[in-house]
Amino acid sequence: KVNGDRLWSSLMELAKIGATPKGGVKRLTLTDLDKQGRDLVVGWAKEAGMSVTVDQIGNVFMRRDGANNDLPPIMTGSHIDTQPTGGKFDGNYGVLAGIEVVRTLNDRGIRTEAPIEVAFWTNEEGSRFVPVMMGSGVFCGAFTLEHAYAAKDVDGKTVGEELERIGYKGDQVPGQHPIGAYFETHIEQGPVLEDADKVIGVVPAVMGLSWYDCTVTGMEAHAGPTPMHLRKDAMQVSTRIMQEVVAIANRYPPYGRGTVGMVQVFPNSRNVIPGEVKFSIDLRNVNDALLNTMHEEMLAFVERTRQETGLGIQVERVSYYPPCPFHPDCVDAVRNATAKLGYSTMDVVSGAGHDAIYAARVAPAGMIFVPCKDGISHNEIEDARADHLEAGCNVLLHAMLERAGR
Amino acid sequence: KVNGDRLWSSLMELAKIGATPKGGVKRLTLTDLDKQGRDLVVGWAKEAGMSVTVDQIGNVFMRRDGANNDLPPIMTGSHIDTQPTGGKFDGNYGVLAGIEVVRTLNDRGIRTEAPIEVAFWTNEEGSRFVPVMMGSGVFCGAFTLEHAYAAKDVDGKTVGEELERIGYKGDQVPGQHPIGAYFETHIEQGPVLEDADKVIGVVPAVMGLSWYDCTVTGMEAHAGPTPMHLRKDAMQVSTRIMQEVVAIANRYPPYGRGTVGMVQVFPNSRNVIPGEVKFSIDLRNVNDALLNTMHEEMLAFVERTRQETGLGIQVERVSYYPPCPFHPDCVDAVRNATAKLGYSTMDVVSGAGHDAIYAARVAPAGMIFVPCKDGISHNEIEDARADHLEAGCNVLLHAMLERAGR
Ligand SMILES: NC(=O)NCCC(=O)O
Ligand SMILES: NC(=O)NCCC(=O)O
Repeated sequence: KVNGDRLWSSLMELAKIGATPKGGVKRLTLTDLDKQGRDLVVGWAKEAGMSVTVDQIGNVFMRRDGANNDLPPIMTGSHIDTQPTGGKFDGNYGVLAGIEVVRTLNDRGIRTEAPIEVAFWTNEEGSRFVPVMMGSGVFCGAFTLEHAYAAKDVDGKTVGEELERIGYKGDQVPGQHPIGAYFETHIEQGPVLEDADKVIGVVPAVMGLSWYDCTVTGMEAHAGPTPMHLRKDAMQVSTRIMQEVVAIANRYPPYGRGTVGMVQVFPNSRNVIPGEVKFSIDLRNVNDALLNTMHEEMLAFVERTRQETGLGIQVERVSYYPPCPFHPDCVDAVRNATAKLGYSTMDVVSGAGHDAIYAARVAPAGMIFVPCKDGISHNEIEDARADHLEAGCNVLLHAMLERAGR
Repeated sequence: KVNGDRLWSSLMELAKIGATPKGGVKRLTLTDLDKQGRDLVVGWAKEAGMSVTVDQIGNVFMRRDGANNDLPPIMTGSHIDTQPTGGKFDGNYGVLAGIEVVRTLNDRGIRTEAPIEVAFWTNEEGSRFVPVMMGSGVFCGAFTLEHAYAAKDVDGKTVGEELERIGYKGDQVPGQHPIGAYFETHIEQGPVLEDADKVIGVVPAVMGLSWYDCTVTGMEAHAGPTPMHLRKDAMQVSTRIMQEVVAIANRYPPYGRGTVGMVQVFPNSRNVIPGEVKFSIDLRNVNDALLNTMHEEMLAFVERTRQETGLGIQVERVSYYPPCPFHPDCVDAVRNATAKLGYSTMDVVSGAGHDAIYAARVAPAGMIFVPCKDGISHNEIEDARADHLEAGCNVLLHAMLERAGR
């Protein structure tokens, strides 16, 4: 078993870098704070006797040799960048759980057959630079290194420049790094485990998601003198579509999701009927056929609304990730380890994207979830229990041992 | 009859001060541009032989003596400040129509019994400093001079400082200026006249209005991992109330109005379920009892929604103006003048507040509307036809002559 106190104190120490007054962490990717965080983790890896390589997109691989170093490494990892108002656990837990696994193997003098590696991937969050899950995306060939380098933040700084500046533009060509199997521990970022009072979530798959930008165009007019029947109120028409987004998700339980998270109203003045409203639509499902049905129903509703109201409505799909089922061998390894350790458990489909979905394109992959308080993440009040984090780390240790051999 | 070409060319000359690339005007109250506009209009008044007084809130009264100067003046006026993306006609037309009336009286050598005055009121628009209709509001005692002086713009500059700076803080105590009757010509700011193909709107009354700030508080959570039934989605609950605002207005035709013009979503991120949504509600009706019924129905719906959803919902009324019926003598004067001149006409209730509603608290008052293109105002594309503006000015001339005597 791992040392839960040591894991917790490493989490708390890393969380000091970029700590916010409200108890969260703001450590945006490729900033000076990210460099400090990276240096700290790399330092810990070296203290634990690991060797470190960095690839051209700044992904860091920390290696503990096995008995047979010709075998591809059994890898775990996640990310240490955070949201602008992020927490201490999202990503960070997955990386430090890996470090704790290695420290435990060292304590016990256990030599694995295959090497063990702990990775952290560059820019998972995507809040400073898009796209999200950038490092793992380049690694698996979802998009090119050049595309990633060219991404700009609001100040016009590029990923390429910033990688160089903080000293994490490595030599290794991304993807030219073998992986025998990939595991990722993560806080659930949802309320399902807590609601069911379970400690370990076995993750069979990650939902697919479709993101859209919707623009409704009406006619800006004065809220007083314009009779109701002569209005083209873009906000009112938008509310119909916003409600349908949720209704569609509710028609496909338990894994349908529909969210309008972002809304902009023009001109956004109290006594002006909105002439234009832009909003985001986020549809998810673990079943690609159902996700496609949801997509079609949404477009059909938009078409009907366009005809009924006469307003202009544009919907553009801006992102699409298909559902990602994890490899049965990895899912079984997690399930077996959980059973052996006797933790309460259930299957939890991941609603959020993770680096593991890109890793799954190039290697067998699986994930382990632990509960987080009230299901909240991407928030400074994100919280998790030390005993749950320890349990997840124990499951990781045993799943990795099963795959690495000893 | 007035000289329509002269009226039009004065409008175009004033519109050069603060002209925007898209053909509109940005001349915010108490700015350097406002000073230039004021100086231009005052210069025209002096050329027309008028005497000028300024009160302590910067309202300007331009006077043409009558045969009996003991009689209170028959006044017309409006404002020359504009919205940030305003047009050439809103307010400006009412002031320059007054100047054109005086020029016409001069051309014809007509001496009225009572004096004639043309006023422009400070800060009608309220976009730089709240409250709106500030000058006429102080004049009629709706709020104090001190309250108005203390109003700050976004840079922290006050009305008192800015009035002094541009040289329009006068000596006269606001309200200590007799008014025999007040007329205001204005573009309709709505589509009713254009829709009915009429030239002159006789305005029997101005709608009352209630403004509210509504805040819905749910729980910010990740759009993927949070199942639909465990969400507290502040945006979805807001859409119900937004739809009801319009439904309530539709239950009280023809003068019910309901608008949600301003919406802010927190944290406003594509993959975060909104934890808080703030939006404005604007309810109007010309009948105060019906406006109150609308108010009660809105509050009852909010209460039901609060109980059904369990989310926090706060509604605060931030402004209330009762409906303002105009004086029958002034309404008749407008109606008679329109009939005499043979213009097509209809009654149009004003949906928007105007300086005339404050003037109506201290004197008999009435308004004259002319069509504006597509009913659009508070927009750089605001437009009106020269022949319509001329017609409105002719009606003003004859209505004022009826009240002033000759
Ligand atoms: N884990 C996570 O927040 N990923 C971002 C993409 C998503 O919204 O699923
Ligand atoms: N005329 C005008 O736009 N007044 C502002 C107050 C209102 O919304 O009626």
